Amino acid sequence: MSEKNKDTKVYTKVIKDIKEKILSGELKNGDRLPSEREMAEKLEVSRTSIREAIRVLEIMGLIESKRGSGNYIANSFGNSLFEPLSIMFMLQEYSPEDIHELRETLEIECCRVASKRMSDDDIKLLNDIVDKMYKTNDEEQSLLLDIRFHNIIVKSSDNPLIVNMLEVISQLMDKFIKEARKIILCEENNREILLNSHKEIVLSLQERDEEKAIYSMKKHFEIIKQAYENY
Amino acid sequence: MSEKNKDTKVYTKVIKDIKEKILSGELKNGDRLPSEREMAEKLEVSRTSIREAIRVLEIMGLIESKRGSGNYIANSFGNSLFEPLSIMFMLQEYSPEDIHELRETLEIECCRVASKRMSDDDIKLLNDIVDKMYKTNDEEQSLLLDIRFHNIIVKSSDNPLIVNMLEVISQLMDKFIKEARKIILCEENNREILLNSHKEIVLSLQERDEEKAIYSMKKHFEIIKQAYENY
Repeated sequence: MSEKNKDTKVYTKVIKDIKEKILSGELKNGDRLPSEREMAEKLEVSRTSIREAIRVLEIMGLIESKRGSGNYIANSFGNSLFEPLSIMFMLQEYSPEDIHELRETLEIECCRVASKRMSDDDIKLLNDIVDKMYKTNDEEQSLLLDIRFHNIIVKSSDNPLIVNMLEVISQLMDKFIKEARKIILCEENNREILLNSHKEIVLSLQERDEEKAIYSMKKHFEIIKQAYENY
Repeated sequence: MSEKNKDTKVYTKVIKDIKEKILSGELKNGDRLPSEREMAEKLEVSRTSIREAIRVLEIMGLIESKRGSGNYIANSFGNSLFEPLSIMFMLQEYSPEDIHELRETLEIECCRVASKRMSDDDIKLLNDIVDKMYKTNDEEQSLLLDIRFHNIIVKSSDNPLIVNMLEVISQLMDKFIKEARKIILCEENNREILLNSHKEIVLSLQERDEEKAIYSMKKHFEIIKQAYENY
């Protein structure tokens, strides 16, 4: 077996072992891992390979090594852990329809929940964003405002799992919004339709009207779908 | 700066650089990366650090190194890339409500789409699974059948993005199903209610009835929610 395959194999074994311990409740954030010697014996590999696998997990940010004290599951995770996976998602080349479907499904739900949970400050923020959207003619700025608009609604869902999932594929989503805007704005009339659609979403949230919130977000995605079909 | 922080920093730089190249369309699956010398010069770090960062990405399965030829973006990704992220999701300790909300949202959509796209073979498979569910009294077997039932519906959505997202958090989902079943089955009557609910979903898919498919999956999640509330 080549050096590379051997290391990948030990890395996979170490990951699997840690995972089982987390599933069984034996390990959680901040907990100390067994010593490298113990792991080497249990998994029947050399200590050098264990050290290399641990090192990979450390650089990724899943594990913290403390000199003289051992290896620990990190207490909090930086973005470094998301990054390789987000690259993988970027390389998969999903179709616009696949991305549209996921976004539509999750954002309608986020918008529904946001109508009940969004803070007044965030609603004010959304109103400000829409005002700025009406005022600017600069597409680069409009795009950033659009992305921010949707992010605020997702975050207001107050569901950390949905927020984290969408974070993992945020580049994918941002790219989708950019392309969708391009396609929508090919039609002159669509600029106003798109602006009004954003406005309608804010109004429904402001009125704390769950049904309207669902309806306005559905309509928003209908505009995107229509534009793709006519393109 | 400690050795560890330095390496993490170079790794982050390398990842960022690769990501930008993918976003701009300069790099895709199977493409050759710039040489380690070029990367070291561009990112203003030593070649040794570049080599270490590349090595981490190689062990993770994102990059393939070919002796004498250079480093390439992998053509396909194994599970090894998903694993560290799935550990992170496991450690986050999301509430059952958060997991329920995500599952409900995505699975109702998957079920809606499956009513149009699911193959007759898969419908037969679902029918077999439900038959086995009725027959067995073994909870371990029932759990596996339940997990398989939902996986088949998700896969039939034919949306690789949704399938991949749910794969990343599959341990989380399986654990949720296990706990939800425990809570539901505390009530004697619920066993039959749960069985009939699975049956109803298959029937709606068999009839290719979109509205019924949505309704039956909604009802399924309503049973889970009710059980949690009465628990």
